Amino acid sequence: MNTSASATDPTTRTLADPDTPFAVVDAHKARLNVERLAARADRLGVTLRPHVKTAKSLDVAALMHDGDPPCPVTVSTLAEAEAFADGGYTDITYAVGIDPHKLPRVLALLRRGVTLRVLLDSTEQTASVTEASRRAGLPIPTQIETDCDGHRGGLKPDAPELIEIGRVLHEAGCLDGVLTHAGESYFAYTAEEQRLAAKNERDTAVAAAERLRAAGLPVGTVSVGSTPTAHSAEDLTGVTELRAGNYVFFDLVMAGLGVCRVDDLALSVVVTVIGHRAEYGWIVTDGGWMAMSRDRGTANQSQDQGYGLVTDLAGNLLPGLVMTAASQEHGTLTTREGTSLPDLPIGTRLRILPNHACATAAQHHGYHVIDDTRTTNTAPAIQTYWERVTGW
Amino acid sequence: MNTSASATDPTTRTLADPDTPFAVVDAHKARLNVERLAARADRLGVTLRPHVKTAKSLDVAALMHDGDPPCPVTVSTLAEAEAFADGGYTDITYAVGIDPHKLPRVLALLRRGVTLRVLLDSTEQTASVTEASRRAGLPIPTQIETDCDGHRGGLKPDAPELIEIGRVLHEAGCLDGVLTHAGESYFAYTAEEQRLAAKNERDTAVAAAERLRAAGLPVGTVSVGSTPTAHSAEDLTGVTELRAGNYVFFDLVMAGLGVCRVDDLALSVVVTVIGHRAEYGWIVTDGGWMAMSRDRGTANQSQDQGYGLVTDLAGNLLPGLVMTAASQEHGTLTTREGTSLPDLPIGTRLRILPNHACATAAQHHGYHVIDDTRTTNTAPAIQTYWERVTGW
Repeated sequence: MNTSASATDPTTRTLADPDTPFAVVDAHKARLNVERLAARADRLGVTLRPHVKTAKSLDVAALMHDGDPPCPVTVSTLAEAEAFADGGYTDITYAVGIDPHKLPRVLALLRRGVTLRVLLDSTEQTASVTEASRRAGLPIPTQIETDCDGHRGGLKPDAPELIEIGRVLHEAGCLDGVLTHAGESYFAYTAEEQRLAAKNERDTAVAAAERLRAAGLPVGTVSVGSTPTAHSAEDLTGVTELRAGNYVFFDLVMAGLGVCRVDDLALSVVVTVIGHRAEYGWIVTDGGWMAMSRDRGTANQSQDQGYGLVTDLAGNLLPGLVMTAASQEHGTLTTREGTSLPDLPIGTRLRILPNHACATAAQHHGYHVIDDTRTTNTAPAIQTYWERVTGW
Repeated sequence: MNTSASATDPTTRTLADPDTPFAVVDAHKARLNVERLAARADRLGVTLRPHVKTAKSLDVAALMHDGDPPCPVTVSTLAEAEAFADGGYTDITYAVGIDPHKLPRVLALLRRGVTLRVLLDSTEQTASVTEASRRAGLPIPTQIETDCDGHRGGLKPDAPELIEIGRVLHEAGCLDGVLTHAGESYFAYTAEEQRLAAKNERDTAVAAAERLRAAGLPVGTVSVGSTPTAHSAEDLTGVTELRAGNYVFFDLVMAGLGVCRVDDLALSVVVTVIGHRAEYGWIVTDGGWMAMSRDRGTANQSQDQGYGLVTDLAGNLLPGLVMTAASQEHGTLTTREGTSLPDLPIGTRLRILPNHACATAAQHHGYHVIDDTRTTNTAPAIQTYWERVTGW
């Protein structure tokens, strides 16, 4: 299930061969992205716990820790947790508030020897987790979600329930630590705002941990992270681990925030020109929202990139060309003002760089992998095929 | 591959059992939706050719023709065509402009005895299709896409190339007919606008067919359709077949257009409450955009429905509650002004009615099927599980 070569014959296939649309990972770019954040985490003195929800691939994850032993990872579903446990990963954080109904699968993973850490922010969830732990005779390592920016879940670090939840978890042997996620950093449009978001994320997590410790409760893990804050944090004193996921591929949202360059994007979708509507200034492709997702994450940025930017098959940007509309299996390419429509005959293959790598990757079963960015040929060779974990 | 019961035990399981999120089809509602359009097509004297791209399921398609023999179908990918050919369907229209690179798979289906009809709107595609037909000694039945409303692809019925393309196809034995799709009818907000869109769609297809016939070219198929125009057309004289897909499930976009009632929606997603943020007026669930898709199709309608409306597990609407935000595995429910937030404890299961059935269904491997809308119990029994066709 990990790696399947069945879909490709690496000795002969290039990006010109599989029927379109399909997703491509540039492994060379992904490795550079991984090295960049790994170096940052080293400088900041924290463990990196990659979030595997973006790629959902054991092969991509292997790039993230450069071989054995498997690193700690973050997952967004129990299906990911189970697949990564099957792949030998033993330290997994399930970073979505726990639904009590899912605890049997959590316990099954713990019984297999996997340290699966769960997340919660309520007394009700705390009662469910501690009760399930007692019945199983197996404490479920649990983190208290802390809210740093009003983005999603979590308790404010000064919330009255924090200490009581911590105490109940501790008495059941379940208290692992605290976790926060600066989701609003995706809307931090300047480097200074991102630095402030990272400082706030760190300060919130550390404040919650210190408050618990002051109440006599042991806090091991102090976990922070988002791709923008991971790349802008300057001081993570008191933090034990940094989570980020998108950084392995990056995307146009991240480029729009200045976290990466467009040239760093490691995920794209190969499409084919299937029509022209000269009267409207449209080139029509066979890559619609089924291939790209409906994500329009750059719509609120200063440069709206539509459904994506366009490159040739070798990855060279076609200046001014944007995928501006999508139906299920049709994409429409148009040009920005002042740019003339390029001559792209029927059958021409292009690559679309996505707004949001997590959402676009989710539309595909896996990735054709290329690894030769140094060449300028129009159809890079396909090295292998990497499957994705799907479902819940 | 058609029906898998492995994921459910129909004797004991209800919507309270599988881990969330998961997609549910109400087969009773789907059958009523199917009967409604079938009766319309009968009255209008046209063959119905359902578009299977919404459900992508042989089991749902079986509802559409109520058993044997399989009806003619429309598909959006060759993967669908191949799966439906495997399922015994022999009359299939692939309604996306043909990419010449895909012709080997088209020919393979023709060789299996499937009448696979392809679509095109250019002289380049015509040359590819006729050349491939000649080489294979097997004419590919081909329809000329006609543009009725500037929505996507197609030639205007008065386009200079129409006759030449028709002639080249005819000489190669490939000319099957004309096809148009009133994609702009999704933005026809009144019944009168929808009737006009349906008339325009019919008039365009018939005009193209008549022009070809006047040039001595035989036109068999005259195909029109979209879910809104299929439900509003009053006269389809000259049309041979009607295509529609969404109508089997319907969705909030269609309800917003008045094509159906919210109560007709046959597809929903079951989610679980995993948190509360009283200070923001939020209920947090485990159903984010991975479960719902990023589709925000009602955003431009007079009533924006966010990412969807909310019902209890039995399908009763929770008035005023809307899924207003989504991250990958988190959904946020809020109330419309003047409505108070209902008391929904951690672990409560809800169903979300989607904006766009095609996009939401695409996020799932298949459907848990219920069929007992007459009962009022909170956890309808699961009858079976229907798999989806995926990929391209």
